[in-house]
Amino acid sequence: MELKQVLESIKEEVNPLIGRGKVADYIPQLSRQDPGKFGMAIETLSGESFAVGDAGDKFTIQSISKVLTLSMAFARLGEQLWKRVGVEPTGNPFNSLVQLEYEKGKPRNPLINAGALVVCDVLISHSGHALKDLLGFIHSLTGEAISFNPDVERSEKEWGHINRAMVNFMKGHDNIKNPCEQVLDMYYHQCSIEMNCLQLARTFLYLANHGINPRNGEQILSKSQSKRLMSLMLTCGFYDEAGEFAFRVGLPGKSGVGGGIAAIIPGKMSIAVWSPGLNEHGNSLAGIMALELFTTKTGLSVF
Amino acid sequence: MELKQVLESIKEEVNPLIGRGKVADYIPQLSRQDPGKFGMAIETLSGESFAVGDAGDKFTIQSISKVLTLSMAFARLGEQLWKRVGVEPTGNPFNSLVQLEYEKGKPRNPLINAGALVVCDVLISHSGHALKDLLGFIHSLTGEAISFNPDVERSEKEWGHINRAMVNFMKGHDNIKNPCEQVLDMYYHQCSIEMNCLQLARTFLYLANHGINPRNGEQILSKSQSKRLMSLMLTCGFYDEAGEFAFRVGLPGKSGVGGGIAAIIPGKMSIAVWSPGLNEHGNSLAGIMALELFTTKTGLSVF
Amino acid sequence: MELKQVLESIKEEVNPLIGRGKVADYIPQLSRQDPGKFGMAIETLSGESFAVGDAGDKFTIQSISKVLTLSMAFARLGEQLWKRVGVEPTGNPFNSLVQLEYEKGKPRNPLINAGALVVCDVLISHSGHALKDLLGFIHSLTGEAISFNPDVERSEKEWGHINRAMVNFMKGHDNIKNPCEQVLDMYYHQCSIEMNCLQLARTFLYLANHGINPRNGEQILSKSQSKRLMSLMLTCGFYDEAGEFAFRVGLPGKSGVGGGIAAIIPGKMSIAVWSPGLNEHGNSLAGIMALELFTTKTGLSVF
Amino acid sequence: MELKQVLESIKEEVNPLIGRGKVADYIPQLSRQDPGKFGMAIETLSGESFAVGDAGDKFTIQSISKVLTLSMAFARLGEQLWKRVGVEPTGNPFNSLVQLEYEKGKPRNPLINAGALVVCDVLISHSGHALKDLLGFIHSLTGEAISFNPDVERSEKEWGHINRAMVNFMKGHDNIKNPCEQVLDMYYHQCSIEMNCLQLARTFLYLANHGINPRNGEQILSKSQSKRLMSLMLTCGFYDEAGEFAFRVGLPGKSGVGGGIAAIIPGKMSIAVWSPGLNEHGNSLAGIMALELFTTKTGLSVF
Repeated sequence: MELKQVLESIKEEVNPLIGRGKVADYIPQLSRQDPGKFGMAIETLSGESFAVGDAGDKFTIQSISKVLTLSMAFARLGEQLWKRVGVEPTGNPFNSLVQLEYEKGKPRNPLINAGALVVCDVLISHSGHALKDLLGFIHSLTGEAISFNPDVERSEKEWGHINRAMVNFMKGHDNIKNPCEQVLDMYYHQCSIEMNCLQLARTFLYLANHGINPRNGEQILSKSQSKRLMSLMLTCGFYDEAGEFAFRVGLPGKSGVGGGIAAIIPGKMSIAVWSPGLNEHGNSLAGIMALELFTTKTGLSVF
Repeated sequence: MELKQVLESIKEEVNPLIGRGKVADYIPQLSRQDPGKFGMAIETLSGESFAVGDAGDKFTIQSISKVLTLSMAFARLGEQLWKRVGVEPTGNPFNSLVQLEYEKGKPRNPLINAGALVVCDVLISHSGHALKDLLGFIHSLTGEAISFNPDVERSEKEWGHINRAMVNFMKGHDNIKNPCEQVLDMYYHQCSIEMNCLQLARTFLYLANHGINPRNGEQILSKSQSKRLMSLMLTCGFYDEAGEFAFRVGLPGKSGVGGGIAAIIPGKMSIAVWSPGLNEHGNSLAGIMALELFTTKTGLSVF
Repeated sequence: MELKQVLESIKEEVNPLIGRGKVADYIPQLSRQDPGKFGMAIETLSGESFAVGDAGDKFTIQSISKVLTLSMAFARLGEQLWKRVGVEPTGNPFNSLVQLEYEKGKPRNPLINAGALVVCDVLISHSGHALKDLLGFIHSLTGEAISFNPDVERSEKEWGHINRAMVNFMKGHDNIKNPCEQVLDMYYHQCSIEMNCLQLARTFLYLANHGINPRNGEQILSKSQSKRLMSLMLTCGFYDEAGEFAFRVGLPGKSGVGGGIAAIIPGKMSIAVWSPGLNEHGNSLAGIMALELFTTKTGLSVF
Repeated sequence: MELKQVLESIKEEVNPLIGRGKVADYIPQLSRQDPGKFGMAIETLSGESFAVGDAGDKFTIQSISKVLTLSMAFARLGEQLWKRVGVEPTGNPFNSLVQLEYEKGKPRNPLINAGALVVCDVLISHSGHALKDLLGFIHSLTGEAISFNPDVERSEKEWGHINRAMVNFMKGHDNIKNPCEQVLDMYYHQCSIEMNCLQLARTFLYLANHGINPRNGEQILSKSQSKRLMSLMLTCGFYDEAGEFAFRVGLPGKSGVGGGIAAIIPGKMSIAVWSPGLNEHGNSLAGIMALELFTTKTGLSVF
């Protein structure tokens, strides 16, 4: 079956799930998303591109951005980074302070909120314009200018008491070096980056390409670093549902509370899917099903 | 580089680690293992076999056996199995009762002790001779008669207060159906199965082969089940170091406290390594390094 | 108001609560208790005795027995006892393994199950007939022969998987010296001791009397030990509702899952109350209310 | 023995402990305290006053202030207060976020930091000048003008990342109604109130007097409320050493990280003690010993 057909058949099969699940409602800007949306896109290393449904609609990538900032920080610090953040999956929900307290301010991994805040802090320490660097990085991957949704950014910051609690807690354990508010500012900006599925798939193709930007040949991460990053996505990319995703889908991926998911088939392609209705773990209900159908239909998985 | 050469060069490079680490000493039978031992073996789907060092020495496979009993239970119950045991990694050590208490007697995954005890219980409920079935299963995979080390078995049972605590706790939550002592008996027998690296590699080749016994073509697990099982190995196979292993090695695997590790390169081969000196997480120090070197040298990983 | 009248008025006021709550049902023998029962009795140091309602009906004292075994062990070991069990209240339910795991097998205090099991173990180590000693101790306090309910004892042992888990867990941490089954046998016997309210009040009068048996002048505990034991009752005597009881009632006391409560007014009197309907914390619903009314009506509390 | 003599003999006996322990050093202003200091004072309801050592030296009362703000809030809200903060002791350290997370932003009791922050929030909601009210309250009890140490206040606020984490976390769970910074401002002001032992003993005499200000007869708390507040002090007043204090001393009390402790003998007197060297739980080493000696020598305790 051609990939285009695969996407079409997936769209049909997930249809009963679309509109079900719960749109994120912790801020009004997200709660207004249309639960009836579903889009999916694929970019292959051979240069092909496939899309279905609302793959051209923009949404905020939210936690998916954690993979991008992690790539930047890992490229700059190398293995030093793991002194400040671990590589182990966590059994607790993504914004848990429990684990953070037991481990004295060192987050379990860089794909939970606490870890992503440390990654922000690292980037800020290394550059006077970390946010601009991030946009530049994405631009180099997509070839397009990408920007924030300022309403989402403002609103998340206003309601982000738990994240503020976390960054202060880590500051109290000396694992945040810059002012807490500056770290939060960076974090909320990255969460509110807007893309559509086609752009998101294009953005993540460097991981399928073992760390090399397929647009310009730039080595963003070494092959070994790229392997490590995908391993983190597989074990930690879906909050406390990471095991379930690895189990059902068998691909490295990362989800966001806006309903988006990016996933990688190493050496072959990147996949983006978006549907705003979330399951009880905060992952896109139709999105996860779409990816499971994809691996079942194509036989493509890392295993 | 030929695989034989790869093994030889790995043996040389891990040499400084051999004899370091700490041999398991919770029972005398394990503490008497020679810390200077190191063996490694590979079986490929194309029928080749490579070995180095003490690959012919026997050791008790301990927790590696959990993958075998899980395969049997998964084959019999299918998705029903996940009602009684989860598929999520755990941030806690392998014998933790904390997680078990929060989750009311349902273990996080089948590769921690609690989960393996539930799997034993499942097998006992399905057969009057679960232990014999297990040996028969291994025999069908290796073509050789495999047996227990009765001293290890007896000794583990005598000192296994924490496991006895766990199985009683789960019985109290109605997640153990058979008498506790019967479940423990099965469990300690499976832990004390003895193999050498060559046998262990041969045993695990069915997973590299997508669930099909390469010796006789029998479909042990469906392709999808095989993917799921390897996914569990990758996310949960190394106690609270699972993330670290996935991060460094990038392969589905399972370690045992006897110093053995089995790992899979899907579609290609199985690898067994053994060295009794353990790191602070209870995994073979030289064994993990050997597997990391293997993926680095060959470029083979799932990512 | 005379104490007799106080008891009468309390009986009337708690009447709407009687029959509400939930009779313990983890074993059939307890579930058959009549939820309509309510008895209360007072023994004073001046030799008076008051009773109301079903104060002559027998019930199993269950966890109330923990104060008696603790008194025996404290008298024998003195401050040495606290090497094996702590004196801090716990925020977790009475049969929690979480705290026990974090604290490596040392229970937080002797009035939770784990702590009482350690106390049993201490008594067994000090005497070849610990159980007989306990009955003798009670006999010296009440002047009457007191015995077990064998059906309750047998049934609790049969269903006590969580306690068996706990004692094995502590054995695994070397905080149980005798065989687990022997410790459990002692524990279930003490839980199944049967008394009525009058007998229970008489049993506890030595604590009101600063450690001296009022019947024969024997110094069971020193004045300081008696103070310490009552302090433990105040801070730890009501599972995870200890604070609430101290807050509402302001007396040292101990409850049991059979619906009984014993409480002390130091230097003055002991009080026993019984009503089988339990609140969600496992404490007698009408019993706690009765004690709160008692302190309110009489102005007697430790504060 | 006269109380004056009791104090003298205590001073002598605790002498070997003075200078031991560890002066709080999380801010420079506290670390500069002289570890050789020791003062103790008693105020009786019969109007007598006794003092020994450095009872006239000022120190910041820190967490002792939590009892005063709690009294104000309890007087204003009555039992409503317990909807927002519990009355149970906690097994975790005083600034733990773990318990707070499990209980969704409702602190276990008002004498840990999280609970005191909620109490601040309550007071701010009830008055436009909560801080002035607090000083006025203390003035009415001591007859003297009491003030803050502005250096301590500023410094604590600057370094108080964990408290900032906590208040934001509770805001995220909607248990803080006013702006986080306003609540923290109130909190750090109350912690930096300076008194000497004589003033501190006088301040707390209303609790010994069942809630009535002995200077002017004003009913601050009802007799029942006063009982409840002392019960909280006994079960929760010493961080994770509350049980140990109740066990050894047997009095309601509250300690502060500045080295001060206030304790009550209901119906009789209040006691203040100060010595800056702390034990590993953050309570004054010599102070706790002094109170234990006091109850032993006088036979006065609540039990």
